[in-house]
Amino acid sequence: MLVKKVGFLGPRATFTHLAVQAFFDHDMKEIAYSTIPQCIDAVADGEIDYAVVPTENAIEGSVNLTIDYLIHEQPLTIVGEIVSPIEQHFMVHPENRENWKDITRVYSHSHAIAQCHKFLHKTFKGISYDYATSTSAAASYVSQHPNECVAAIANQLAAKEYGLEIMKRNIHDYEYNHTRFAILCSTKHEYESPKLSVSKEKTTLMITLPSDQSGALHQVLSAFTWRKLNLSKIESRPMKTGLGHYFFIIDIDMCVDDILIPGAIAELEALGCRVKLLGSYKAYNIQTAIKE
Amino acid sequence: MLVKKVGFLGPRATFTHLAVQAFFDHDMKEIAYSTIPQCIDAVADGEIDYAVVPTENAIEGSVNLTIDYLIHEQPLTIVGEIVSPIEQHFMVHPENRENWKDITRVYSHSHAIAQCHKFLHKTFKGISYDYATSTSAAASYVSQHPNECVAAIANQLAAKEYGLEIMKRNIHDYEYNHTRFAILCSTKHEYESPKLSVSKEKTTLMITLPSDQSGALHQVLSAFTWRKLNLSKIESRPMKTGLGHYFFIIDIDMCVDDILIPGAIAELEALGCRVKLLGSYKAYNIQTAIKE
Repeated sequence: MLVKKVGFLGPRATFTHLAVQAFFDHDMKEIAYSTIPQCIDAVADGEIDYAVVPTENAIEGSVNLTIDYLIHEQPLTIVGEIVSPIEQHFMVHPENRENWKDITRVYSHSHAIAQCHKFLHKTFKGISYDYATSTSAAASYVSQHPNECVAAIANQLAAKEYGLEIMKRNIHDYEYNHTRFAILCSTKHEYESPKLSVSKEKTTLMITLPSDQSGALHQVLSAFTWRKLNLSKIESRPMKTGLGHYFFIIDIDMCVDDILIPGAIAELEALGCRVKLLGSYKAYNIQTAIKE
Repeated sequence: MLVKKVGFLGPRATFTHLAVQAFFDHDMKEIAYSTIPQCIDAVADGEIDYAVVPTENAIEGSVNLTIDYLIHEQPLTIVGEIVSPIEQHFMVHPENRENWKDITRVYSHSHAIAQCHKFLHKTFKGISYDYATSTSAAASYVSQHPNECVAAIANQLAAKEYGLEIMKRNIHDYEYNHTRFAILCSTKHEYESPKLSVSKEKTTLMITLPSDQSGALHQVLSAFTWRKLNLSKIESRPMKTGLGHYFFIIDIDMCVDDILIPGAIAELEALGCRVKLLGSYKAYNIQTAIKE
């Protein structure tokens, strides 16, 4: 059997990498990409079999770049979803372990800094922040600059990968912080995790309304409501054609069946909506992050 | 009469600053804040009379930090809205005007770089990007580093403020790019621009559904649809209490009246929704950016 090539939003030791390691077999080949578009392009171009990219965070909301790139640039199929807890830790270079309370600068991804705002504000009033392209890049920087009074906020995998010392665990302000990751593929097929168990089945649709009329979205929702199709998410995103023009991403809590979802789609199309099936797939939860 | 103190997302010469100059009287006192929360806090604390912050861009979508901070941290009232075109220009230090095609690095806000992706990809294949905290900060950096082969993407005001030379105008990929800015105040009152004319009247509501049931959003929309209240926007944002918990921001295309909107709000509350009026205000369009 050929070894699967799995691309992910890198560098190594990001939360996406952590999700990849929890979901796939150990014998896959991991390839880190430095941006979400590069990772999505790689699967569209056949360089890799699967791309794993973040789609939504419980605090920050949707990862717009992923949604927009899938809609506007590379139409791929969502073949699976991983939900992972986001546990942020405060780490320094081992040489700074004694004086970690005197650090003057924190380096991390802007979302990680925002997620730990209360901790930082309370513990280090007046500290300065610098934004890295990822939590892992911040950890890498700190490992290479032992002489600077700088700390990183990152996950456990990054502390291990870059030999940093965790001084405070779980410094994130909100307890229930999770990120959803989509597993993307260029062909429609089922892929089941050999390591995690299925938490639910889902279908994701993209719907464009026929015109900017007040009642159009209400009408769209009616097609699902009267069929008792449970929508776990509805999100508006700009069409990029001007303020006030949106499309909608809808998650339905079941796999595509033969009757109900095709019926709703046919009705919506008859009403002038454009409907695109982005995927019908299984969702998996990672219960806890990898422990040391 | 006391001079109005107007705070905005700085530094000087950002698109927000440009909107402030187009909207307010010349005799206001302008105060730049380095983050959206600092600017919002300043009006809540009475340091300034008005805060002007971005809320939505036609391409990037909502400015989540503004929406989330208003909902979760500082309840203020939206007393006006400014819609401004976003015109991005490619600029270098005057000393580099002859060899601008040889530059190797572009510095700007991540959104500005994303908005000019096609131009950059076509004109400078393989160029490297660095992200600044604002387009204006990027222009400031370029003005201070004449020896570096670096360009900024920023607006006309920034080119003027920092003495840079615009080599290519309007390099943004999408023509219809606009940003909405909210004018926030700690008290409910009307404020009319002495310089721009009103384009429309609006009401913004925040609605929390009673439970995660499929039909709840459909029911909410029904309350507006049957009254023929036109919704120009509906947006979901995370409650920050876990994946799948959302609240909704709804824009209605009219000011709060005595009958229709209060009637819809009362019905929604009776159904178990939490409804908050974020503002009922006038919206203004800036027709073109400030010309040199």
